[in-house]
Amino acid sequence: MDRSYLKDILDQVAKGEVPTSEAMELLKDLPFRDLGFANIDEHRNIRTGYPETVYCEGKTPEQVAAIMDGMRGNNSNILGTRASKEVFDKVREIISEAEYHEAARMIVVSKTNKVVSEKIIAVVTAGTSDIPVAEEAAITAEMMGNRVERIYDVGVAGIHRLFARMDRIRAANVIIVVAGMEGALASVVGGLVEKPIIAVPTSIGYGASFGGIAALLTMLNSCATGVGVVNIDNGFGAGCLASSINQL
Amino acid sequence: MDRSYLKDILDQVAKGEVPTSEAMELLKDLPFRDLGFANIDEHRNIRTGYPETVYCEGKTPEQVAAIMDGMRGNNSNILGTRASKEVFDKVREIISEAEYHEAARMIVVSKTNKVVSEKIIAVVTAGTSDIPVAEEAAITAEMMGNRVERIYDVGVAGIHRLFARMDRIRAANVIIVVAGMEGALASVVGGLVEKPIIAVPTSIGYGASFGGIAALLTMLNSCATGVGVVNIDNGFGAGCLASSINQL
Amino acid sequence: MDRSYLKDILDQVAKGEVPTSEAMELLKDLPFRDLGFANIDEHRNIRTGYPETVYCEGKTPEQVAAIMDGMRGNNSNILGTRASKEVFDKVREIISEAEYHEAARMIVVSKTNKVVSEKIIAVVTAGTSDIPVAEEAAITAEMMGNRVERIYDVGVAGIHRLFARMDRIRAANVIIVVAGMEGALASVVGGLVEKPIIAVPTSIGYGASFGGIAALLTMLNSCATGVGVVNIDNGFGAGCLASSINQL
Amino acid sequence: MDRSYLKDILDQVAKGEVPTSEAMELLKDLPFRDLGFANIDEHRNIRTGYPETVYCEGKTPEQVAAIMDGMRGNNSNILGTRASKEVFDKVREIISEAEYHEAARMIVVSKTNKVVSEKIIAVVTAGTSDIPVAEEAAITAEMMGNRVERIYDVGVAGIHRLFARMDRIRAANVIIVVAGMEGALASVVGGLVEKPIIAVPTSIGYGASFGGIAALLTMLNSCATGVGVVNIDNGFGAGCLASSINQL
Amino acid sequence: MDRSYLKDILDQVAKGEVPTSEAMELLKDLPFRDLGFANIDEHRNIRTGYPETVYCEGKTPEQVAAIMDGMRGNNSNILGTRASKEVFDKVREIISEAEYHEAARMIVVSKTNKVVSEKIIAVVTAGTSDIPVAEEAAITAEMMGNRVERIYDVGVAGIHRLFARMDRIRAANVIIVVAGMEGALASVVGGLVEKPIIAVPTSIGYGASFGGIAALLTMLNSCATGVGVVNIDNGFGAGCLASSINQL
Amino acid sequence: MDRSYLKDILDQVAKGEVPTSEAMELLKDLPFRDLGFANIDEHRNIRTGYPETVYCEGKTPEQVAAIMDGMRGNNSNILGTRASKEVFDKVREIISEAEYHEAARMIVVSKTNKVVSEKIIAVVTAGTSDIPVAEEAAITAEMMGNRVERIYDVGVAGIHRLFARMDRIRAANVIIVVAGMEGALASVVGGLVEKPIIAVPTSIGYGASFGGIAALLTMLNSCATGVGVVNIDNGFGAGCLASSINQL
Amino acid sequence: MDRSYLKDILDQVAKGEVPTSEAMELLKDLPFRDLGFANIDEHRNIRTGYPETVYCEGKTPEQVAAIMDGMRGNNSNILGTRASKEVFDKVREIISEAEYHEAARMIVVSKTNKVVSEKIIAVVTAGTSDIPVAEEAAITAEMMGNRVERIYDVGVAGIHRLFARMDRIRAANVIIVVAGMEGALASVVGGLVEKPIIAVPTSIGYGASFGGIAALLTMLNSCATGVGVVNIDNGFGAGCLASSINQL
Amino acid sequence: MDRSYLKDILDQVAKGEVPTSEAMELLKDLPFRDLGFANIDEHRNIRTGYPETVYCEGKTPEQVAAIMDGMRGNNSNILGTRASKEVFDKVREIISEAEYHEAARMIVVSKTNKVVSEKIIAVVTAGTSDIPVAEEAAITAEMMGNRVERIYDVGVAGIHRLFARMDRIRAANVIIVVAGMEGALASVVGGLVEKPIIAVPTSIGYGASFGGIAALLTMLNSCATGVGVVNIDNGFGAGCLASSINQL
Repeated sequence: MDRSYLKDILDQVAKGEVPTSEAMELLKDLPFRDLGFANIDEHRNIRTGYPETVYCEGKTPEQVAAIMDGMRGNNSNILGTRASKEVFDKVREIISEAEYHEAARMIVVSKTNKVVSEKIIAVVTAGTSDIPVAEEAAITAEMMGNRVERIYDVGVAGIHRLFARMDRIRAANVIIVVAGMEGALASVVGGLVEKPIIAVPTSIGYGASFGGIAALLTMLNSCATGVGVVNIDNGFGAGCLASSINQL
Repeated sequence: MDRSYLKDILDQVAKGEVPTSEAMELLKDLPFRDLGFANIDEHRNIRTGYPETVYCEGKTPEQVAAIMDGMRGNNSNILGTRASKEVFDKVREIISEAEYHEAARMIVVSKTNKVVSEKIIAVVTAGTSDIPVAEEAAITAEMMGNRVERIYDVGVAGIHRLFARMDRIRAANVIIVVAGMEGALASVVGGLVEKPIIAVPTSIGYGASFGGIAALLTMLNSCATGVGVVNIDNGFGAGCLASSINQL
Repeated sequence: MDRSYLKDILDQVAKGEVPTSEAMELLKDLPFRDLGFANIDEHRNIRTGYPETVYCEGKTPEQVAAIMDGMRGNNSNILGTRASKEVFDKVREIISEAEYHEAARMIVVSKTNKVVSEKIIAVVTAGTSDIPVAEEAAITAEMMGNRVERIYDVGVAGIHRLFARMDRIRAANVIIVVAGMEGALASVVGGLVEKPIIAVPTSIGYGASFGGIAALLTMLNSCATGVGVVNIDNGFGAGCLASSINQL
Repeated sequence: MDRSYLKDILDQVAKGEVPTSEAMELLKDLPFRDLGFANIDEHRNIRTGYPETVYCEGKTPEQVAAIMDGMRGNNSNILGTRASKEVFDKVREIISEAEYHEAARMIVVSKTNKVVSEKIIAVVTAGTSDIPVAEEAAITAEMMGNRVERIYDVGVAGIHRLFARMDRIRAANVIIVVAGMEGALASVVGGLVEKPIIAVPTSIGYGASFGGIAALLTMLNSCATGVGVVNIDNGFGAGCLASSINQL
Repeated sequence: MDRSYLKDILDQVAKGEVPTSEAMELLKDLPFRDLGFANIDEHRNIRTGYPETVYCEGKTPEQVAAIMDGMRGNNSNILGTRASKEVFDKVREIISEAEYHEAARMIVVSKTNKVVSEKIIAVVTAGTSDIPVAEEAAITAEMMGNRVERIYDVGVAGIHRLFARMDRIRAANVIIVVAGMEGALASVVGGLVEKPIIAVPTSIGYGASFGGIAALLTMLNSCATGVGVVNIDNGFGAGCLASSINQL
Repeated sequence: MDRSYLKDILDQVAKGEVPTSEAMELLKDLPFRDLGFANIDEHRNIRTGYPETVYCEGKTPEQVAAIMDGMRGNNSNILGTRASKEVFDKVREIISEAEYHEAARMIVVSKTNKVVSEKIIAVVTAGTSDIPVAEEAAITAEMMGNRVERIYDVGVAGIHRLFARMDRIRAANVIIVVAGMEGALASVVGGLVEKPIIAVPTSIGYGASFGGIAALLTMLNSCATGVGVVNIDNGFGAGCLASSINQL
Repeated sequence: MDRSYLKDILDQVAKGEVPTSEAMELLKDLPFRDLGFANIDEHRNIRTGYPETVYCEGKTPEQVAAIMDGMRGNNSNILGTRASKEVFDKVREIISEAEYHEAARMIVVSKTNKVVSEKIIAVVTAGTSDIPVAEEAAITAEMMGNRVERIYDVGVAGIHRLFARMDRIRAANVIIVVAGMEGALASVVGGLVEKPIIAVPTSIGYGASFGGIAALLTMLNSCATGVGVVNIDNGFGAGCLASSINQL
Repeated sequence: MDRSYLKDILDQVAKGEVPTSEAMELLKDLPFRDLGFANIDEHRNIRTGYPETVYCEGKTPEQVAAIMDGMRGNNSNILGTRASKEVFDKVREIISEAEYHEAARMIVVSKTNKVVSEKIIAVVTAGTSDIPVAEEAAITAEMMGNRVERIYDVGVAGIHRLFARMDRIRAANVIIVVAGMEGALASVVGGLVEKPIIAVPTSIGYGASFGGIAALLTMLNSCATGVGVVNIDNGFGAGCLASSINQL
């Protein structure tokens, strides 16, 4: 299509329908179109269910509200991550259908809700305290049209709890493992299933957990193969990656 | 199958064909079989092309040779990672068909060579110095039955080189990005394609690259979504994860 | 017992008392029982005095209260660590006999109080500011049925204070040393007694104490032998480990 | 001039117009004057437009107000960086013409406003959240007599946005790139233009961004040449350096 | 006994049998004797089987040989840790019965060999590469009179291997877990058994294992209770601590 | 004196004036007295002007007040470091003559005020923001009987300010240099004077100052010789060390 | 020119001289040419004296030689950084005019030698050990057509040495300051001159210099304004940045 | 004297004996002389016994030899620190009286040997492996004219060894404590004596000693007051600081 657009212009120039100077103007931004950069967000979302996303930390409530307002025209789902209640309140003034997921600290404006893939993404947590990050991942994946199976609080300190849920975990196509403290769950799950695993270290812990570094290092050094790691507490990124794998 | 195996035993006990004591012995290791742990390596490889792998660092040449010798019976492909030439020489004494990939520091014993998936895994590097890690990823993926497209030396300092290869990158199903120094390539590729990206930081660099930490942090903090990160220089892990995604 | 349980089922199948399908259902979770995982918390506590424990940080007051409420049925002691006063207040609404140890930030629901071992666990601190962590260790050990001797504020800056209490320290079976700042007390005590020593670094200090890292490193590098280290501020873990040693 | 001042004194001594003892007194501080240290702030500002600057963090509002009050006599522009609103309010009581830039957290007392150089300093940010630091840089550069072009929110995750502004960036004489998270923008811009680039990592991000360390390391390890880095969030320093380059 | 020694002297002074000046001389070193410091090494070993130990790193072969020669008189077992072959050769020249354990890098001079405790210390490793550190622990424990059960290469990536050995692990009184890379084995074992666990992180791994830091942090943050950690690669310390627990 | 005390007891025993049992009791704590440990604080302060000190962080106001109340009997100066206003208020209730130095966050109870040494300790700061730490050092030194010369805000960015005060700095016997940010002042002063220099890094700065680590490393790596470093923000320690040097 | 190239093609298409399909082929790589990426190295060097550069670390001698051989056609200066003698020997076999700067570890192939700018770049070092890095910077700058003034061994420990050369430093247009250990020189020079300063931390030092981190942090936190920092030991980068500033 | 030199010149100018232009030339370097910088090394050594020192690491043998040769004229003691045997051999070729202290890795050229102070500097080590650093400190102090008392191998793991030497330690005027691993010795000594203590962390240790960081942090966080710390392994710096204190 992009190539056909280029061909059209050249054809029109060849036919004299478009003067050289005008073609130059049209071609000026071509590099980005030809590579598929330009206006990408507007189109992608409609086609793939990929939501428009605003990272709210470090932005004023006014900025977030204005950005989301501008996104509304695209008729796409909108996601706000790391959003405080204060930010949400400001957004709500403008976008009445916006919803707030408190645990996940997400603002969700859901326009379309169709499931794109029937294959399941499992979101597994080591503990109860990891649930907010897991919810960020789960909601993101759902917003992108995936089915999500939540399996929480199955950390290795009581490994039988994990085994009792292995059937449900094995049934998934992609597995997101969310764990803080020492983060060993990712290695154990990675040793038990052959599906792609996305490991999300969380900042749960204290002392030598160093805000999630311990879990992060554990996951990066996992003796199990097939584990990809995202940033500490980055449920959103895990959800996106899982979705892009799930919808291949 | 595992369930049917369990059923068989119980049926035989019910019929009196197997005495209780013997069934107990058979069931003793059942937990692991029922969960699919036991003898997993023997079976998995034949079915999936997943190679048996030996991490050679910290093992004596004799240990590596003995382990690989033991694996031979399974008729599976065997991979030795981080293998010195000295280790290879010892292995070669025992397994004459073993090959050594010097750049990747890998020992390869290839029994089967059939391609399992026609979908392509692209392996992209920022620079020439990143090639050894990229080769480890590429060879691993190939050993697991994937087609691999190598695209080397397209780092962001001369970003036009990357754009000139975007067609080939976009044609891939999964993309492995290998980069040292500041590791920015993963973010840029991640901003240009929607396929799953596996980022491999390398220890190439000096000073504040801190043996790959700079690239690792860059990749973990990538502003592009859909990026999963593996350990520094872990080409093998990237190859495995890419394969598990590619063969979903 | 677990083995006899397995034997019972198989015997019943052999006798035709239990049909194969039902046995399969019974055996489905067997792996975990056979290994002793399943329902472990319910049984262990009654037998060993080991309390059910809730790590309260990162959980809402409601979550903590609900979890503790669920644990009540087991008639076991319940411990809440890193609990704020706010969390306690919510728990108190439901469990009226719950008590709050403010310094240790612990919630205690004490059902049984019998001492399991007459041997003493000494809890020694370098300074007054280390007492909250020491109390967490001491209360945990007491809840698990141990006698505890508290010896506080005997840091090496005034080493005569330590020597004046060496008799009481030597009389203990296991010694927990709690110290922040440079954490040298563990090494000095380790050089004076031959009993197992559990070192707990605390986050007391400032500047280059880096929230307890300095004390942690000191303890890990202790030139004295026989010192095991737990996480920074992890009084609970030290209490558990000391108890498991003390009750061998 | 300094040398002529020295010559004047010596001439006067030679002529007997100034006694030895008085010359000694005059020469006592000479080292610093001769080297250009002394009273430098008073003179420099008038000549170069360089503002007097107060780093407000760690100073009481009273201290800041008193220092700025003392600077007023020099008829120079005054800048307060990292100033809270509270500090500004105290300054405003004394210096009524003081202005507060909330996003940049700067106090500005502008006496002279003439542009010294027509050449442009571009201030480019990766995201919206980086704007406060960018504004600190931009305002500083403007206060020093430079023209500033602001180009915000052109991070590499949507690299087409950057390319759409490359003309404006290329038109600049010096480029300040402000980016948090993985900070890859500096490398990409550095690969596209040959002008001096000043990279400012920001503390925007979470988890493994470690308060800006990830972006800092990215910039220090940039595979692009011609990039100088300043401290995390140091918009002021970037503005000063850019100005000193721009006015060569 | 020490008190009786003090009493003897005072009695003798009271009776005039020992003049004041001589008593003063006798009492001069009393503090250390009364506290049990002095000559402690000479006595302790005979009584407890605790070996005299020389940390060889950073000492010349001559120094090590001289120290060990001096220890011989005490008729005690002697241990040299982190000893190179070169150091051993020098020691062998003087002490002909010295033996060298190459994997563990230990020199052993064994005078007494009686087992003090029948209770078993299990030494468990995650991988083959962890064996040298495990051997240091095992040999140390054996030298101190303990029975040792070696269970190697049961890491969590193939967790069924661990489960197949749980019986032997559960039979132990104290468990030493030796693991590099992500070190998750300690948490998993800790979740399965209630015996005291001593975790030894090893420097096995690469990249973000940071020479054992990843495993160290994992173990310090273990969600399983009852785990005490020693320094990276500190098999000797683990062996000592395990012995002191085992012989309570 | 301690030795004479020992002699007295022994003489009395020899004369029969003190029975053996009573002497044993008296000698029980002797080790520490003989070594000078016991009750050291009571005596030392009167003789040397060394104040009793309470580190207030991590202690409750009640604890601090109780400790200081207990110290009062010794008629010594009392110092409370890192004391909040709240702590002071509690202390004031009990000790009416207590004073609060807000900048230094110190509580001072001054009983004796005599200057022990006429030699001067110079306290030099790089910036205004370093003054609180400098004041902690200065007040500590004064409480210990030293004369203090304060020289503030002479950082290397305007090195002429330092040179203008070199006479006063050179006149001192010991020099305390207090600096945050890059902490270069210690090296520069160290290159200009041959007196002992105590360098105090402060946590002033942001970004890559890492709470004082940058200044700490600068001072530890000082190319100037004769520089001893104390912990970040440790004005108290610097004051004590300077005093112990000044009163040799 | 790039625009005229685009115009030419379009004109030819308009005239029918070039068929659409051929124009499409020609325009395929246009984006990069239009943005100035493509073949940039070939043109840039002739115009600006900017050398082609090969980072030799992590490349085999054969790779380096092949790359340099390929660059020869462009008639440009060629630079090899971090080149071992072994690499140079291989290059010399192919390019006989190649020279080796041993201290700087650089390979230089110098085709053109004309000075582009008469303005001076001063390269200043703190110590003798910093000279290799300084030489890398100086040679790079010279290869790019700049005049370089070398001022070595003027560290702050003997600050008079610096002052004795201030005239020569002040005469420069851009100043590169190269320093290891505590790196304070950059701040001092920054406080004395108003020209742009490029600070290069070196890995010279030991202990807490952490391979150059101490100097790096010092420079990033410099209290002097107008200082841009490059990576540890990155003389090449400093030379490039200085040149791009010097030739504005 | 410097002032009289200034006065002389001015007097001569006043008398017309020195023309203005010549006086200007003479005064050009005055600032440094007036501040005492210039030629300082030549004079200082003769007066104070302070040796000329060359830090040999990172310098070629030829450079070291040339620098030392240049220093010979001053008739001062010369010290080379961190000198390899290879460097010494080159120096010996030129300076035949040079001596090499292998353990301390120092080159010593001793011209004068007179003791300046009768007061003693004690150099205390925790272990045998710390002796090289201790020797660097001791030799430095001796070269500067101090009496040194060496007290080695009295670490806290066997604290009675320390107590047995307390008399000799107490007799010293300044105490240098050299310790690696956990470095607790400095705190213990600091708690026992009131003299100034200079703590030198060493890189002795492994694993979490991180090349001396553990000992460094311990010493910086020492709960004992009156402790100043120098860089890891910096025996030379400790010797200089001790000497400057000892000769006040």
